[in-house]
Amino acid sequence: MQIGVQLLPSPLNSHLVSNRVVVVIDVLRATSVMVHALSQGAQEIIPVKTVDEAFQMAKTFPEKTALLGGERESRRIAGFDLGNSPQEYMAWKVRGKRLILTTTNGTKAFYSVSSAKEVLVGSFFNISAVAERCLELNRDLLIYPSGDEGDFSLEDTVCGGMLVDRILKKSNMAIDLTDACHSARILYQGFEDHLVEALHLSRHGKELIDRGYGDDLPYCAQIDIAEIVPAFREGVIKII
Amino acid sequence: MQIGVQLLPSPLNSHLVSNRVVVVIDVLRATSVMVHALSQGAQEIIPVKTVDEAFQMAKTFPEKTALLGGERESRRIAGFDLGNSPQEYMAWKVRGKRLILTTTNGTKAFYSVSSAKEVLVGSFFNISAVAERCLELNRDLLIYPSGDEGDFSLEDTVCGGMLVDRILKKSNMAIDLTDACHSARILYQGFEDHLVEALHLSRHGKELIDRGYGDDLPYCAQIDIAEIVPAFREGVIKII
Repeated sequence: MQIGVQLLPSPLNSHLVSNRVVVVIDVLRATSVMVHALSQGAQEIIPVKTVDEAFQMAKTFPEKTALLGGERESRRIAGFDLGNSPQEYMAWKVRGKRLILTTTNGTKAFYSVSSAKEVLVGSFFNISAVAERCLELNRDLLIYPSGDEGDFSLEDTVCGGMLVDRILKKSNMAIDLTDACHSARILYQGFEDHLVEALHLSRHGKELIDRGYGDDLPYCAQIDIAEIVPAFREGVIKII
Repeated sequence: MQIGVQLLPSPLNSHLVSNRVVVVIDVLRATSVMVHALSQGAQEIIPVKTVDEAFQMAKTFPEKTALLGGERESRRIAGFDLGNSPQEYMAWKVRGKRLILTTTNGTKAFYSVSSAKEVLVGSFFNISAVAERCLELNRDLLIYPSGDEGDFSLEDTVCGGMLVDRILKKSNMAIDLTDACHSARILYQGFEDHLVEALHLSRHGKELIDRGYGDDLPYCAQIDIAEIVPAFREGVIKII
């Protein structure tokens, strides 16, 4: 088994990943929202790239069965039901619903990795469950931090490093780590007992605070509050 | 002042760096060779991309004034005077000479960053001297690890993180760090008292050991053995 970490988000060549498991991570906040919503009973999530696409998609479902969620410049989109704070995605709002989600980095990432054998959704919320599933699947693994508008993201890479650390601690197998993978793990270890500091140090974390979403940082830094593993298959994210 | 770290090597857009200082780092082994050779009295270094180019370039200089150095697959190139171990570049061989150097990652990196305002040559050997110079120049800085055949390099990024750490410790200015820059610094701090372990952990370090160049790892991990700052200007690297 080999584990790699894609430090900068970019579309993956299908020949490189068609036999691999990919874990997409966008701690602030798309994959945290996804894991949270599904753990609160949402039926499924459809990630789309544009706002127009979201509105079009919503029209294809029976009335009141689909909710529109997501952000542009961190804020709820006009005409949408929900923004991009995980705390908004509570059972009383989302149970049984289909969510159509569009965000700046996270939802797009799923289309960059769609040629992988299996695409899982990772966050601090479900880090141990994802680690277990990766070991069960027992394939080469690529961890895909969604990044910060095409650039490197500190908080996503810390979360990726935590996933590596969890996998290594749970496994007796020989696992081959790339340089990027070693680095992500060491980066995580630098924040091990105070994860929220990584979120505060990151450019995007600071931006969320400036825009009034500071509460989302400690919320998204919660570990193992959801024992679920969502996967992205044929355009839809569901618990598998 | 802002400091960034280019985690993956790629040619830089001139509009992004034309006003910046860039520090190129290839610990294993091109920039270590360069700093070592110049500190041992070599007159100047001309980095070239191909072996053919190196032979052609050598012909343009008077006989016995130029030495050919570098590697392919870590090994000395047939017909070359020197390989790519810094320890080969001692005063009795290189003093007063012009070196024409071609390596897999490091020499190419200089052409990827050539549109920068100033391009400096960094390694563990001259880390404190480079940090001082960056502070004197007082411009936005981009640290450029040369990478591992286009991929992320652990040892170069650790060295870049050490440069960030040195600069921050020497400065009273407000310095803005990117997420990648924070990460490189934290990565360095993970190896602070045992730098050579980063070189042993890296893919390229292991490859050098396999190919019989294991001595180069502790050699290249030496800190501040050369108080010089070479720069790349108009195709030539010299102490400035």
